Amino acid sequence: MVYCCPFIVSKLLPVLICSPSQVHLRVAKSRKIIPLNLVSIISLFTMGVQLLPYSNLIEINRQSAVPVFKQVAEGIVLLIVNEKLKPGYQLPASRDMASLLKINRTTVVSAYEELQVEGWIEVIERKGNFVAQQLPVVRPKPFEAPAVKRPGGEEYNSFYKKVASWRVSKRTLSAHQLMMNDGYPDVRLAPLDSIYDRYRFLSKRVYLHGRLLNDSAAGSMALRTELSHFLAKTRALHLDPSHVLVTHGAQLAIFIAASLILRPGSTVVVGDLNYILADRLFEQMGAKLIKVKVDENGIDVDEIERLCKKSPPDLLYIIPHHHHPTTVTLSKERRIKLLDIIRTYRLPVIEDDYDYDFHYENAPILPLASADHGGYVIYIGSISKTLAPTVRLGYLVAGDDFIRQASMFKQMVEIRGDVLFEEAVAHFFNTGEMQRHLRRSVKLYKERRDIFCDMLNSSVGDLIHFNTPAGGMAVWATFPPAYSIPDLASRLAEKGIFMNEGSLYRYNENVNGIRLGFASLNTAEMQKFIGALKECR
Amino acid sequence: MVYCCPFIVSKLLPVLICSPSQVHLRVAKSRKIIPLNLVSIISLFTMGVQLLPYSNLIEINRQSAVPVFKQVAEGIVLLIVNEKLKPGYQLPASRDMASLLKINRTTVVSAYEELQVEGWIEVIERKGNFVAQQLPVVRPKPFEAPAVKRPGGEEYNSFYKKVASWRVSKRTLSAHQLMMNDGYPDVRLAPLDSIYDRYRFLSKRVYLHGRLLNDSAAGSMALRTELSHFLAKTRALHLDPSHVLVTHGAQLAIFIAASLILRPGSTVVVGDLNYILADRLFEQMGAKLIKVKVDENGIDVDEIERLCKKSPPDLLYIIPHHHHPTTVTLSKERRIKLLDIIRTYRLPVIEDDYDYDFHYENAPILPLASADHGGYVIYIGSISKTLAPTVRLGYLVAGDDFIRQASMFKQMVEIRGDVLFEEAVAHFFNTGEMQRHLRRSVKLYKERRDIFCDMLNSSVGDLIHFNTPAGGMAVWATFPPAYSIPDLASRLAEKGIFMNEGSLYRYNENVNGIRLGFASLNTAEMQKFIGALKECR
Repeated sequence: MVYCCPFIVSKLLPVLICSPSQVHLRVAKSRKIIPLNLVSIISLFTMGVQLLPYSNLIEINRQSAVPVFKQVAEGIVLLIVNEKLKPGYQLPASRDMASLLKINRTTVVSAYEELQVEGWIEVIERKGNFVAQQLPVVRPKPFEAPAVKRPGGEEYNSFYKKVASWRVSKRTLSAHQLMMNDGYPDVRLAPLDSIYDRYRFLSKRVYLHGRLLNDSAAGSMALRTELSHFLAKTRALHLDPSHVLVTHGAQLAIFIAASLILRPGSTVVVGDLNYILADRLFEQMGAKLIKVKVDENGIDVDEIERLCKKSPPDLLYIIPHHHHPTTVTLSKERRIKLLDIIRTYRLPVIEDDYDYDFHYENAPILPLASADHGGYVIYIGSISKTLAPTVRLGYLVAGDDFIRQASMFKQMVEIRGDVLFEEAVAHFFNTGEMQRHLRRSVKLYKERRDIFCDMLNSSVGDLIHFNTPAGGMAVWATFPPAYSIPDLASRLAEKGIFMNEGSLYRYNENVNGIRLGFASLNTAEMQKFIGALKECR
Repeated sequence: MVYCCPFIVSKLLPVLICSPSQVHLRVAKSRKIIPLNLVSIISLFTMGVQLLPYSNLIEINRQSAVPVFKQVAEGIVLLIVNEKLKPGYQLPASRDMASLLKINRTTVVSAYEELQVEGWIEVIERKGNFVAQQLPVVRPKPFEAPAVKRPGGEEYNSFYKKVASWRVSKRTLSAHQLMMNDGYPDVRLAPLDSIYDRYRFLSKRVYLHGRLLNDSAAGSMALRTELSHFLAKTRALHLDPSHVLVTHGAQLAIFIAASLILRPGSTVVVGDLNYILADRLFEQMGAKLIKVKVDENGIDVDEIERLCKKSPPDLLYIIPHHHHPTTVTLSKERRIKLLDIIRTYRLPVIEDDYDYDFHYENAPILPLASADHGGYVIYIGSISKTLAPTVRLGYLVAGDDFIRQASMFKQMVEIRGDVLFEEAVAHFFNTGEMQRHLRRSVKLYKERRDIFCDMLNSSVGDLIHFNTPAGGMAVWATFPPAYSIPDLASRLAEKGIFMNEGSLYRYNENVNGIRLGFASLNTAEMQKFIGALKECR
């Protein structure tokens, strides 16, 4: 209550240390502590003494990651915003505030400095620190979504759309836990240092910043050039940089391509099962999914032909290598037939080939985009998969004009990527480091796949069904229908293993599977996982 | 012609050096050069000699940034893909290939190694290098957009949509040119080193990569926490991290918010003039723009009220601080009235406050989002503006549920940001470096604004009209209607100054202006620009 009506006393500068039972007044000049009771507070108040129990009002949490000076500054801002400190009101001298809050004086000085810069307080020389006069004092309201219906928005209970959600694990991964992910590369292999060093080096060449912004809509020209060479060599794609768009992750490439092709009511042929973030994305855009069975040879192309004969769909989304989630590869025969269908029915295709570089059995079958598709295949790849999932880089390959449209669309989504970082990755390609890294990774991942599949088979082969994948970073493991993967995940968590609950793959009641990412685990980690799996099953 | 029908000779390994007038045969074992004519070629051919003029078929450009070994490998892939080298065909030994192409032997070895890893060739011990047998040989076709009409796609001449385009400068910026941008920060001030060092440091803590992926949809928790403190202090926004979504640039935040709010046919109130990438984005989504005049006090709120009375629009997009492009700030009175309109008509608002941190006259007016808006204001800010335009970071502030929907939508767009980099930037906030950096920048930019406006006035004040902006990084300069800004840009280019042609701001025939970014120029650079402007006008 005492802090409700503070006002300025400029000649005397006392502050209160307030506790429920006992109230002390500390007079700055004499540095004497005088015990007070409520009556004397009131009399002091009438005498014009500044009454603010700062120690109660400004909470300091020494465990917090936020530096103390920031906590103090923030506390004072809240007092101002809540009108507990009014414009023109004088703050205690830093020395007094410090002893009051039991912190170092320099901490208070830093806090005041910060507040001054941000315009919350004004320093009047030889007088002290005052709450700024021109401050527009407002009462901030918590952000809250209104629950009313808007005209025309019947299907929603707010002014914005709901996005189809998927349950994700509520548990968080601690530093000491082993993570069973759904197919990430092993960041320990990626020579990220080399890329980050280059990044840091480039960032100092300040003229580059400006230069790179020029014509950056489709991504750094250096990276587009490197990618066109890399794709020519590894995938026999005939390209020049004008066919390549660099994106902030392959997902953005899918998003942009789908945005250009789909309209509300469009039909999209997808695999059954399919990469769930693609399905959800198409649905969010108002498209209708047509699900076509995926067996051990990939998607059923005869069914696609039947669909095309009836009424050509607007888009086919396909993952020919290591289909997500089931890891199967489209056979050569189906691939040839599919190319024929694409040409005949002029069927636009998004070919999501995120896993092409990781194939372990002889040479990979070339992408659809490498063959004659009449310009209907939009090809998408990922660099995140070759380096680290935190590195967000993907690319989209298509005809010149599609790339032009996609670049302009991309500008509306993100203006540009981090072109400086793209240049650093271009350098990594240019020096041959990327190819060496890929070679090492593919060799190691193949070994890991073999070890992991052997372990799985010998220890839980009776529980888990899977086929050894010909490439990629994960095994598609299915469980008996009644088996609870979330329960398994809980038991594993107790043993220090973090595994997602498989709810991402719970497409329907007939699917009870999960992707087990082997690529990021060394042998000891695999043993730990399999051992725990055996115990927790 | 000679290379049309090559076939394998395993005991003899000769190769051809072919020039139009003279043909030489070089036999590997004897290292003797034998002159040949076409008749002898044919006879050699029937003798089973391998006839491939590699030096003509594999182009090596020593000026290229692409390493020679990669050029060789790429050349061989193209020969394979074009069926000039068939499966099973033997390649010359590295020594022979090297002397043939006049390059180092180790270069050829590297190229062969690379080809082997990528599955294009097979090494048979003691025999040599052979084109792989399992290779699916296809004839790659150039990517081209089909020009046919698809059913239902009458308005397009292809299977994808056209994006509204804007002319951009075709000139490119060289390293030595001075860039007059439209309002970028000065990267020379940004302590990027500190952030990149931290980034590199974090990237080595490999456990972090996994941990950060967990619950990363809305961005790194550390950065969301830091932002909530920062926004509380600087903008009196009452927040916790659950109200903050980190995005890959503020543009993505606008894109996500608009995607959740707009449907085809929705109406959006925007300023006239307005930030063009926002206008284009809304139109791309099928929304209809309602343009409301912006004068020296900001957008005309009475007109917004009239619109709401008639038929409430679905969205208001507003830039209250330093409106883009015209740099005006919404007055306090209009702000209060607008808040009233928002609450009364439940008007959803995207408040794009990219420039808030850069205000030079007394304290900035607080954002709409800081006041009572009933949950209808989605607040957007930029970190790119405080560091460097190549650093892509922005944020969106809204109610818990909106942030949840936006996070799920964001996942469909980009899965996640570079959470490791976000952590590095969080550290930059946490140590107080961001605040120190801002303080320094604001002080310097204010000085630069004053100097720049003085210079503009005294040298070309009769040609260019402008008002000194109260904040931000650019001056909105308008020219007489008949004056050609593209011509001016061309003349400036001859003097080593890169300036965009203003076509981005050519909203209609009555607008002839350009944003002149002063913040990134030091005094000498301003003098250079103004001097050239005076000469080139």
